Amino acid sequence: MNNSLGEVFRITSFGESHGDCVGIVIDGCPAGLPIHIDEIQREADKRKSSRNRPLATGRREADKVEVFSGVFNGFTTGAPICLAIWNRDIDSSEYEKIKNVFRPGHADFTAYEKYGGFNDWRGSGRFSGRITAGFVMAGAIAKKLLATIGIDVIGHTIEIGGVKSSPPQRIASIRAAMATNEVSCADPAAADAMIELIKAAAKDHDSLGGVIEARAEGLPPGLGEPVFDTLEGCLSKAYFAIPAVKGVEFGAGFSVSRLKGSEDNDAFSVVGGKIVTTTNNHGGILGGISSGMPLVARLAVKPTPSIGKLQRTVDAETREPTSIAVGGRHDTCIVPRAAAVAESMTAIVLADFALRAGKISRVLK
Amino acid sequence: MNNSLGEVFRITSFGESHGDCVGIVIDGCPAGLPIHIDEIQREADKRKSSRNRPLATGRREADKVEVFSGVFNGFTTGAPICLAIWNRDIDSSEYEKIKNVFRPGHADFTAYEKYGGFNDWRGSGRFSGRITAGFVMAGAIAKKLLATIGIDVIGHTIEIGGVKSSPPQRIASIRAAMATNEVSCADPAAADAMIELIKAAAKDHDSLGGVIEARAEGLPPGLGEPVFDTLEGCLSKAYFAIPAVKGVEFGAGFSVSRLKGSEDNDAFSVVGGKIVTTTNNHGGILGGISSGMPLVARLAVKPTPSIGKLQRTVDAETREPTSIAVGGRHDTCIVPRAAAVAESMTAIVLADFALRAGKISRVLK
Amino acid sequence: MNNSLGEVFRITSFGESHGDCVGIVIDGCPAGLPIHIDEIQREADKRKSSRNRPLATGRREADKVEVFSGVFNGFTTGAPICLAIWNRDIDSSEYEKIKNVFRPGHADFTAYEKYGGFNDWRGSGRFSGRITAGFVMAGAIAKKLLATIGIDVIGHTIEIGGVKSSPPQRIASIRAAMATNEVSCADPAAADAMIELIKAAAKDHDSLGGVIEARAEGLPPGLGEPVFDTLEGCLSKAYFAIPAVKGVEFGAGFSVSRLKGSEDNDAFSVVGGKIVTTTNNHGGILGGISSGMPLVARLAVKPTPSIGKLQRTVDAETREPTSIAVGGRHDTCIVPRAAAVAESMTAIVLADFALRAGKISRVLK
Amino acid sequence: MNNSLGEVFRITSFGESHGDCVGIVIDGCPAGLPIHIDEIQREADKRKSSRNRPLATGRREADKVEVFSGVFNGFTTGAPICLAIWNRDIDSSEYEKIKNVFRPGHADFTAYEKYGGFNDWRGSGRFSGRITAGFVMAGAIAKKLLATIGIDVIGHTIEIGGVKSSPPQRIASIRAAMATNEVSCADPAAADAMIELIKAAAKDHDSLGGVIEARAEGLPPGLGEPVFDTLEGCLSKAYFAIPAVKGVEFGAGFSVSRLKGSEDNDAFSVVGGKIVTTTNNHGGILGGISSGMPLVARLAVKPTPSIGKLQRTVDAETREPTSIAVGGRHDTCIVPRAAAVAESMTAIVLADFALRAGKISRVLK
Repeated sequence: MNNSLGEVFRITSFGESHGDCVGIVIDGCPAGLPIHIDEIQREADKRKSSRNRPLATGRREADKVEVFSGVFNGFTTGAPICLAIWNRDIDSSEYEKIKNVFRPGHADFTAYEKYGGFNDWRGSGRFSGRITAGFVMAGAIAKKLLATIGIDVIGHTIEIGGVKSSPPQRIASIRAAMATNEVSCADPAAADAMIELIKAAAKDHDSLGGVIEARAEGLPPGLGEPVFDTLEGCLSKAYFAIPAVKGVEFGAGFSVSRLKGSEDNDAFSVVGGKIVTTTNNHGGILGGISSGMPLVARLAVKPTPSIGKLQRTVDAETREPTSIAVGGRHDTCIVPRAAAVAESMTAIVLADFALRAGKISRVLK
Repeated sequence: MNNSLGEVFRITSFGESHGDCVGIVIDGCPAGLPIHIDEIQREADKRKSSRNRPLATGRREADKVEVFSGVFNGFTTGAPICLAIWNRDIDSSEYEKIKNVFRPGHADFTAYEKYGGFNDWRGSGRFSGRITAGFVMAGAIAKKLLATIGIDVIGHTIEIGGVKSSPPQRIASIRAAMATNEVSCADPAAADAMIELIKAAAKDHDSLGGVIEARAEGLPPGLGEPVFDTLEGCLSKAYFAIPAVKGVEFGAGFSVSRLKGSEDNDAFSVVGGKIVTTTNNHGGILGGISSGMPLVARLAVKPTPSIGKLQRTVDAETREPTSIAVGGRHDTCIVPRAAAVAESMTAIVLADFALRAGKISRVLK
Repeated sequence: MNNSLGEVFRITSFGESHGDCVGIVIDGCPAGLPIHIDEIQREADKRKSSRNRPLATGRREADKVEVFSGVFNGFTTGAPICLAIWNRDIDSSEYEKIKNVFRPGHADFTAYEKYGGFNDWRGSGRFSGRITAGFVMAGAIAKKLLATIGIDVIGHTIEIGGVKSSPPQRIASIRAAMATNEVSCADPAAADAMIELIKAAAKDHDSLGGVIEARAEGLPPGLGEPVFDTLEGCLSKAYFAIPAVKGVEFGAGFSVSRLKGSEDNDAFSVVGGKIVTTTNNHGGILGGISSGMPLVARLAVKPTPSIGKLQRTVDAETREPTSIAVGGRHDTCIVPRAAAVAESMTAIVLADFALRAGKISRVLK
Repeated sequence: MNNSLGEVFRITSFGESHGDCVGIVIDGCPAGLPIHIDEIQREADKRKSSRNRPLATGRREADKVEVFSGVFNGFTTGAPICLAIWNRDIDSSEYEKIKNVFRPGHADFTAYEKYGGFNDWRGSGRFSGRITAGFVMAGAIAKKLLATIGIDVIGHTIEIGGVKSSPPQRIASIRAAMATNEVSCADPAAADAMIELIKAAAKDHDSLGGVIEARAEGLPPGLGEPVFDTLEGCLSKAYFAIPAVKGVEFGAGFSVSRLKGSEDNDAFSVVGGKIVTTTNNHGGILGGISSGMPLVARLAVKPTPSIGKLQRTVDAETREPTSIAVGGRHDTCIVPRAAAVAESMTAIVLADFALRAGKISRVLK
């Protein structure tokens, strides 16, 4: 029951998958930021499902973003910004059938235990990926805020079902390349292979996981508030709010365990009067603080737990074994959609740190 | 500048490597917990360096734990508990020499940028591993608290320099096995190989990284406060406060990217009237909430950045290129010591969540 | 820019007087609390203006409460509860005229300085008393929660324009007596005199202040988290979020300055096996912690700053002296409406403390 | 159990009256602030008891301030600053005698109920006025920080036992006048009368309360973060952490209840190009935000509950009626000492708000 994140730029999430709406309140956004609802809509749309099966969930929401508060005459006012989308295309019938059966890999059992069975199970309720629509709306504003000081962020697919991409390193190139396919992958050849794998898994009533890379460029050195509010720690906490994320690493990440200090350490150098590192194993973070080098994070995303295959499970009421084949509308692979959310979470956390460090002022003029 | 962690069981860290002391304030510990300083000392000693070179740093601190407040007649009082160790065996001369040279892989540059050069550079100041002595003292109390409801935690080395261990799965067995060697590895054969690697790296003036596993058993289902205070998110944030950690994963972790849903999903079953999963790819966490299955986390630890080899870097004052070979007293591989800290951070976060969920009462009788 | 209050039962306010809506998100409400929207509506209506002039503002809002999230099948789910009322009867024309003139006694000037002129000035925006509609909706839920452990709260008018009431001491009697008049005063004779004063002030285009008493009965001993989260401190902080409150006192309050210790100290006694005090100068709070005696707080409310009389002020754009007679729709005396809000804030803070102390469990069955 | 206060400039209190020490950790103080321990000592000494009986407690502590962390080469480093004084002159014998008897007006009963009898009762433990020594040390640093942007604060006695002072309005004059007597009263004639009253009360084994005024000058407009983190609300919360405070008011305070809007509203005017108000009934705060006018707060302080007179009470163990005459070392009137603490709390809260509003940067050069 903690649905708020951040210290200065703080978001509070509300809403359920099949309730009235999904929303977010942003507190602490500086006054004077120009807001165009089209821009927020465009960001929100990135999280939406592909139009083409089998890459798509069957759910067809217009998901029109509404601004309830905090914006006046086209600018943020310094007051809390409440954004929401209404839930219209709701069909809870599939969930009604299985409401007492714990779906393997889902939060059904843990939520049942935690909330005493009172949780809204329709469409997975608070544990639905749809909740992240709020994150993406907040991310749109965070990204605008970061742009005022030259910070750019991206999230893209770098692995699905074992197929790895060889993406470019600069955000501009990644952005251009990932737009050419439906899996948000900045390597067209890998994207093709990923799509084939997804089609095969869908045919097999199965699902696939993958890896997302989140990047940020243009960070000033000095963001992060150690020892506990490190950049890695706060980004990770935000990333793990994305359903299905099971691992997070920065820079060389888990591969550091096989490197020697002489291999892992990034040498410092001066380029154009600016101190940089010649390599970036540290992923833009040293001692929990940004170094000014590109921030690089990777997120492991598990395969969609909702699959059509028969799985063994337990009935909540009888506490007897049973089995389930999950129907309803589910993506075979949520990695591309999660990439858009990872981009948003990155922006939200960085906006908070930029404000905390005084790199963005409280009134923008 | 956020040196507090936790909502109910909240720790606040203070002190520097070569300042007067390193300490921790624990706020929110229930009243009535019996405290024996010997127990805290024993835990604090786990974090200490090996006695044998090259596994050891040269620093020789008695590190006698002192309890400044919050304990009366052998029990916690409900008041803040302040614990500290004094810094006695201080030799800042090596740091004096290099205070203006940014050590590659260290926080020297980012701290300099963030704190305008005012940060205490002696012994790495706030960025020293010595700060974690405070975490371990707090962890000792967290573990006692968790024991009152049957939760046990462990941190152990599972990989160093590419050598992987095949540890047992139960904490009791891990604890017994890891005690037989100096690298806190629960697989004796792997431990031997790790020690050989460390010796070789030391001789080569280089360093090694590795992987730690943290585990907890006996968790009730229902710990974790999604959507933002997930168990994974809050544990990660705590783990990234351990210097050198660059990646965190839970359960199947990054390997989920290569699994299908039908492989990754853990089937539910009933054993002895209790709902369990037959496998544990979820690492004891579903939807950010504990399932009651063992919690399994892995942390990637980078090689010690302080190495004797010559490295290219930049001078802080002149902003000119220079080079450095780091002297002073440094571990060739900090993974075993970091394992003790990972154990403590696990306990601290779980104690906080157990209190938040009302699983531990505010007065213990 | 901090629009959240509370640690466990935490409310987040959003919305503006003349924007789309005024709302509140409640995070941390236990699952399993039965919610009837009629009950929330009834509480929200208490804050509404009298139907009779001059006790009334001209604004005529239906203010129908909507529940956007967190309630399912008539019970709270443990998820964030978002409640809102839409703004329909908006007339910003009076504000348009004076948008560049700082109204004396209002937040126009300070908000202009703080938010760089970007703040929504229509209907006083975030500084309108209408924002407290969100507090009252949250208060309705807090009161239901408190009722589960036998705590009852009330807010009533005890002074307007110098006329003091002699109210009964028990909440049940206060509640009955205050319902008989339009100024929420539990002393009918005083109420009559207050109403006469308000009529006279209205005729004179002037306004009146007063004093509110907030009371709670049925508190268990032990609520409050010193040294900083004292019961007095957290209640005060909540009370000062009510526009126009300029002072708060507990028990004997400011009169303690004229008492001796032997007069002020409340003797302890045992009644029916329960430890009580024979007097209640401490207002139910000792050392920042509830004693189990009735909680008694008083709030000073300043006269409505919006008055029809001509006042000297300054123009925001020209920075030149000017004068203003505030038109629009304003209560001559907001004390009775603020009393309903004070009741809600009392409930919100006590619900938070009851949850923090473990007196209310996280799932209600 | 919340011993931390503040968002950016955050203090964490620890220690007990008769434990090892009383301390404070300050997190979030900008780097680069020059710190001289003599200055902190001088502030800490202000809180100390008078040297002359009966204005004095018998306790005679050197109370030498020690800086454990966060200061290096005479400047703050950006790391947590831990300050403490050791408890040396401890005599718990008087408390040993009465440890099972609830002293009227004290927190003995409520603490016993809350902490299950585990709380440290020696010298009132966490509920002793001695805990405020930590506040004053933190206040010393907050005041230095505020001075960098021209903010000055003061706390002084304006009423004791019914005797009211007529102090000057400007801080410089108050500071000079209050230094001439032992009751920190800026009106010499009133000070004399207060001292006579205290002597008489002491002779009578009784005690006296009073009123403190806290003031701040030089505030920029725009400090305060409504709707919940108002300047009044956060100051009040801090003030109620001072033992014995039972009421807080700002500007015209409780007297607003007898004013009309036309009397209470402060007209705006322009003086020297700056917008000011011609009167200051608002006490420097409008809408919870500083106006730039002097901040004026008043705190009601109850008479010292420890009195030598016989009082009726209850025994904790037997739950039977008994009586008590409190011995030990106690001030007859703590108002003057509390004034120093009120000054510190004012500074701590304002420093936090100045940092939150970006009025003080995170590195001072």
